[in-house]
Amino acid sequence: MSRHAPTPGSEFARIEIIQRLLGEGVASSEQVLLGIGDDAAALAPVDEPLVWTIDSAVEGIHFRRDLMTLEDAGYRATMAAASDLAAMGARPLGLLAALILPREVSDADVEALVRGQRAACDEVGAPLIGGNLARGMELSITTTALGAAASPLRRDGARAGDELAIAGPVGLSAAGLRLLLQQNPAHEEAILAFRRPRARIAAGLTARGVARAAIDVSDGLASDLGHLTRASRIGAEVQASALLTPALQEAAALLDADPLELALQGGEDYALLVAGPGVGALPGFTRIGRCVAGEPGVVLVDAEGRSTKIVERGFDHFAPDPS
Amino acid sequence: MSRHAPTPGSEFARIEIIQRLLGEGVASSEQVLLGIGDDAAALAPVDEPLVWTIDSAVEGIHFRRDLMTLEDAGYRATMAAASDLAAMGARPLGLLAALILPREVSDADVEALVRGQRAACDEVGAPLIGGNLARGMELSITTTALGAAASPLRRDGARAGDELAIAGPVGLSAAGLRLLLQQNPAHEEAILAFRRPRARIAAGLTARGVARAAIDVSDGLASDLGHLTRASRIGAEVQASALLTPALQEAAALLDADPLELALQGGEDYALLVAGPGVGALPGFTRIGRCVAGEPGVVLVDAEGRSTKIVERGFDHFAPDPS
Repeated sequence: MSRHAPTPGSEFARIEIIQRLLGEGVASSEQVLLGIGDDAAALAPVDEPLVWTIDSAVEGIHFRRDLMTLEDAGYRATMAAASDLAAMGARPLGLLAALILPREVSDADVEALVRGQRAACDEVGAPLIGGNLARGMELSITTTALGAAASPLRRDGARAGDELAIAGPVGLSAAGLRLLLQQNPAHEEAILAFRRPRARIAAGLTARGVARAAIDVSDGLASDLGHLTRASRIGAEVQASALLTPALQEAAALLDADPLELALQGGEDYALLVAGPGVGALPGFTRIGRCVAGEPGVVLVDAEGRSTKIVERGFDHFAPDPS
Repeated sequence: MSRHAPTPGSEFARIEIIQRLLGEGVASSEQVLLGIGDDAAALAPVDEPLVWTIDSAVEGIHFRRDLMTLEDAGYRATMAAASDLAAMGARPLGLLAALILPREVSDADVEALVRGQRAACDEVGAPLIGGNLARGMELSITTTALGAAASPLRRDGARAGDELAIAGPVGLSAAGLRLLLQQNPAHEEAILAFRRPRARIAAGLTARGVARAAIDVSDGLASDLGHLTRASRIGAEVQASALLTPALQEAAALLDADPLELALQGGEDYALLVAGPGVGALPGFTRIGRCVAGEPGVVLVDAEGRSTKIVERGFDHFAPDPS
């Protein structure tokens, strides 16, 4: 291309940074026929159904630079998109990202952000093939992820009697966020759950052929399990004791918070929730309850066997700010 | 789902609007196995290589609401992404869109925007399957488009001696923008080229097996043909007379502007530029010049046979504002 070093801050300088950070990952992929530098990416044919998602992370809404680095933000945005593939039991084929960058974002900022995206892609096992750069007032990362699954896992396949199981923590990310807001970084695992959540790709692949329904826990267990019960037209009972992991209890104690409240209402852990016969015995999963006949919704059962209907407080992007 | 009418302005209200506007298009697609309402979309297997792109349209950068409606903005953003498929000679399979919506965007605004997306998708012949909604300070539309092509057309296949041909106008969109900025809506075709550019999907499919290289003209003919010459390591000669269509000359006259300047430097027409033996005779294409041995770059040849080397002024998203 150009024989000159690109002007710092120019579109060309950013494309060079991105090519350098992504190039090797793309080149080593057997799936990618054509990477950055043409009008579009090209992938080898896939003989299974395709699973496809898009997800945006907007500064000030989904992440704050005072609570995480741009490397964390890039990692997290990528994992949030990949988590939708996990929830379909898909193996990832590749990702594209559209960055909207305000003027004050430096080349070093772009490099940090893309390094985070690359780290997430390496963990997910699929290349970030390319994407788009645009200017804007507000920093955002929009990621599209493509995967393949012979029988994509849907939300609507659960039946009464199925076990419910999760892979990954619930509530720990919300605890990490609250600790950071209190400037109390006393619980590394919770803070890592917030800054570096992991898409449960391997768990999704493990659940194939056993799970009858799946969803990723992005808005909170109560809300996302609520979605699954409505799609499947069943009810759900969750055992409180199954949610109370030592890490969550420790982090909740530091916050003087209710660990069950965190587990049920806290989002952005990207745990994988599955329903099916025997899913609680799958490696990497913990049994948390069961599907029951009746009205959709979630009932919590405590150690004494008492049941409480759980109110969902899923995140509405367009709700008025709390006053 | 909910038995109640959704609260106006809520995320659920917007999802209902979007489902209503997109539902029929998705349902009638044989490609789509699973549409809106699960963690990801699912598509039927495709036995050809996949072509995949992502593109953002940001308010204030790519569109202004005083110059076009939100229906135009949705249409245009969708066509800009689909145009990358045209440039690869791909048939579109489907699209996903991520909308970032500021608080002041109403349900009616969302409906207009999505109606424009749907109209573009109908024209392109592929469904908008779903996407993502997020809040932000700045309105943006990020579209990912997936297509299939047995042999994707790249930028790097042109050879000396190949003809150069275009499908669609060049310069007319820039003329339309300038007319609107002068509050002079005197040339409907130019204004339509700006507000409602069309991805040249049919032309891209026509060019398969004949063209050896292709690119869509998004930044301007000089810039995008420049990219093609660098990727293919050839030079290019363009006949000035071939660019001077009656519509462009009329619109330029209204602006007291040079029509060749508009044709070479004006972007966002999304014309399809192809190189190959005999491409000038393809239906829907106009021969504009030829590929020559030598240094990459574009030379303009006038009616008297005089040659001028064209300076590229491609758009750099991160360049300082002109002072």
